[in-house]
Amino acid sequence: MNKARELDQSVLAELKALLGDRVSTSAAVREHHGKDESYFPYALPDAVVYVTTTEEVRDVVNICRRHGVPMIPYGVGTSLEGHILAVHGGVSIDLSRMNKVLAVHEEDLDAVVQAGVTRKQLNEFIKHTGLFFPVDPGADATLGGMAATRASGTNAVRYGTMRDLVLGLSAVLADGSLIKTGGRARKSSAGYDLTRLLVGSEGTLGIITSLTLKLYGIPEAILSAVCPFTSIEGACNATIAALQVGLPLARIELADEVQIRACNAYSHLDLLAVPTLFLEFHGTAQSTREQVETFAGIARGEGGGEFRWAERPEDRSKLWQARHDAYWAARGLRPGAEVLSTDVCVPISALADCVTATRRDIDSLELLAPIVGHVGDGNFHVMPLIDPANPEERREIQGFLDRLIDRALGFGGTCTGEHGIGEGKISYLRTEHGPAVEVMIAIKKALDPLNILNPGKIFALA
Amino acid sequence: MNKARELDQSVLAELKALLGDRVSTSAAVREHHGKDESYFPYALPDAVVYVTTTEEVRDVVNICRRHGVPMIPYGVGTSLEGHILAVHGGVSIDLSRMNKVLAVHEEDLDAVVQAGVTRKQLNEFIKHTGLFFPVDPGADATLGGMAATRASGTNAVRYGTMRDLVLGLSAVLADGSLIKTGGRARKSSAGYDLTRLLVGSEGTLGIITSLTLKLYGIPEAILSAVCPFTSIEGACNATIAALQVGLPLARIELADEVQIRACNAYSHLDLLAVPTLFLEFHGTAQSTREQVETFAGIARGEGGGEFRWAERPEDRSKLWQARHDAYWAARGLRPGAEVLSTDVCVPISALADCVTATRRDIDSLELLAPIVGHVGDGNFHVMPLIDPANPEERREIQGFLDRLIDRALGFGGTCTGEHGIGEGKISYLRTEHGPAVEVMIAIKKALDPLNILNPGKIFALA
Repeated sequence: MNKARELDQSVLAELKALLGDRVSTSAAVREHHGKDESYFPYALPDAVVYVTTTEEVRDVVNICRRHGVPMIPYGVGTSLEGHILAVHGGVSIDLSRMNKVLAVHEEDLDAVVQAGVTRKQLNEFIKHTGLFFPVDPGADATLGGMAATRASGTNAVRYGTMRDLVLGLSAVLADGSLIKTGGRARKSSAGYDLTRLLVGSEGTLGIITSLTLKLYGIPEAILSAVCPFTSIEGACNATIAALQVGLPLARIELADEVQIRACNAYSHLDLLAVPTLFLEFHGTAQSTREQVETFAGIARGEGGGEFRWAERPEDRSKLWQARHDAYWAARGLRPGAEVLSTDVCVPISALADCVTATRRDIDSLELLAPIVGHVGDGNFHVMPLIDPANPEERREIQGFLDRLIDRALGFGGTCTGEHGIGEGKISYLRTEHGPAVEVMIAIKKALDPLNILNPGKIFALA
Repeated sequence: MNKARELDQSVLAELKALLGDRVSTSAAVREHHGKDESYFPYALPDAVVYVTTTEEVRDVVNICRRHGVPMIPYGVGTSLEGHILAVHGGVSIDLSRMNKVLAVHEEDLDAVVQAGVTRKQLNEFIKHTGLFFPVDPGADATLGGMAATRASGTNAVRYGTMRDLVLGLSAVLADGSLIKTGGRARKSSAGYDLTRLLVGSEGTLGIITSLTLKLYGIPEAILSAVCPFTSIEGACNATIAALQVGLPLARIELADEVQIRACNAYSHLDLLAVPTLFLEFHGTAQSTREQVETFAGIARGEGGGEFRWAERPEDRSKLWQARHDAYWAARGLRPGAEVLSTDVCVPISALADCVTATRRDIDSLELLAPIVGHVGDGNFHVMPLIDPANPEERREIQGFLDRLIDRALGFGGTCTGEHGIGEGKISYLRTEHGPAVEVMIAIKKALDPLNILNPGKIFALA
């Protein structure tokens, strides 16, 4: 844990003049804002400010810029690659109090929210409309944070990721300007796609203050199921076949045998400890039945066993809660261990080979590491359980990560499907994108010449 | 038509040393590259080069940059806002000979193509795989051009636009660097989304040389239909209701009564001259029937008349050919006139009001102007037929365009849904996006400090 530095007193004085007691330098608050859900060590900000309006964000940015102080946008701290760590100190800008749903346009299937609204809060707010916001990364993250990290999750295969579902946004840039990008029209060809540039920029180009989001109608019928497979290949091949015939799967998630054992223990289930697909079908009563029949036929041909169905909402919730608790279930496999949750994404044809080779690699290390995957997208997570105090394990894991990324890139994939670069994957970004990283840096320097917006993330700039 | 300028002879000599007789300064070739399908006057390049490899593109860029010569990427010239006009002279880089499909990955539902491949060529090439590429702007444009202008078209409501379907690309930037963005994985959170930045950048940030595109399975069943309505409101309301219940419409196109009269005359049809929806349903035999029943119920409640069905491929082709020929049919309404094809896009709840007000505006001018729309996206086209020699009509039309954009922006929409900014909508971009345009310009200046990539498009830089 890094030592408390002193912010220039004049910065603190200006921030306090602006925000009063919504500026904190207490150790507890700084600690809370100095650690995310990744395995990275604490890196505390020098101060935390709680903003409530876009204008306050702008004013904070102007104060910090004048003094050359780094700023780190903070939602609820659920990111997984060290995104919110104050590795160069500075001010953590906590947006969680900007949590108003500003508008819901039922006819247009969109909502306008402040950046601090969480996905569960939004879905609760709009429940009566029969609409929902589908992106579901597991954690109840803020929508601003989800946009900043280009989050996705279990139903991206059907509904897309934050890249697809953010129609527009407002952001404060490093120079204090407030911009609005995109809009409420479903399509636009009006100039550069700044919305997509800010989505996934991890707080390094601007601080997102509000978002316009696409919504979907809650389907008339929802069917959930689990289906055991004799092999990872079978589960992956069934997924590919289903996508090729155009089956509109809402969710298709793989858990390997290690993960299933963890889920059985943690969530009191009695699933067969074999590679298993968790599935969800959305549609009308008739069309979901048709989808299920099609998928069942495909699964049988690929070594799929008996389906276990959940049509009642409470049964569905239990099933998906188990999937969502995969991370906590994994932790339970080795009490006291840290979970190093990482992700890669490959073309789906390579998924079975990539997962199988990764399983072999882990097993050769004699480390525990469940694998779960959003297999409809070719995206999977490995969660090695390591003893943070054991430098040998750390070294082993670093080698494992290097090989995992090499393997994914070798298959034409990416070093991260949905977690982002943060501080954890800076070198892998370079390996993956080569000269394109220079272009990213040129954009960063054009928009944030002082490198004060979340410095040390995505790139290690001088 | 602007007078032939002389390119510095040393530039020409260098280009000829590189490309031999694939450099042309002939009047005919320059004229062919100095006009698109917009109403803008000719603006000829000083020379046209035909490139066949990415390396040649890079070498041409390096030659032009050293001499400060503007470059305009050219596909087949079907853009609609003056995108390919050489308003500052320079070299038109014709990519139409880079027309190889480099790879088709059936299992991954993607294809890698050179930028000069056209959408029809790709679909012909992959027909045997049972897959198709859905973006269909009407014209048989090159895929590089479609990406550069963020094209969409009739089935974007179901399958998305070029923004959604380009997984990655290669491009040569102004400094001669060759970058690869995105990749073949379905998702990635690895750094800034340069793919989406280049898609829609209209040749001002880089020259796209190849693309990785998402493909879809050709649906088992396709049903097409036309349905007449008693009012534009009825047609729009039926569309909104269908989207709200989550009907996966593949195409839903509005043609107003003026357009229907034009189509009847041009395509020898006998449709009722009333606002009409052209529809297409994709799915299984069973699910398309279910979709049709649902839509028919909705349409009846909104003043919809009798459906006319087309299930046989040749009947479907005839129907959609009539829709695609809307532009030519419009021209036929006033022989000798020019079509000023423009587009705006609004939230769908505002579509009926926006179209109706636009219809009234046109009628008050006593000008002919059919309206067609991709109503599932809230995107519609107005095609005033004007006498190019009549300055009074030009003035009237300018006022009409200003009001159209104001109206669309007033409804929360955008000044262009799919045609782009080009040289025609530079001032409207400013009205729509305000300070965000400065951010776009900062990016442009960072990546193209000499302003040599398609200058005079999107912005009017000094």
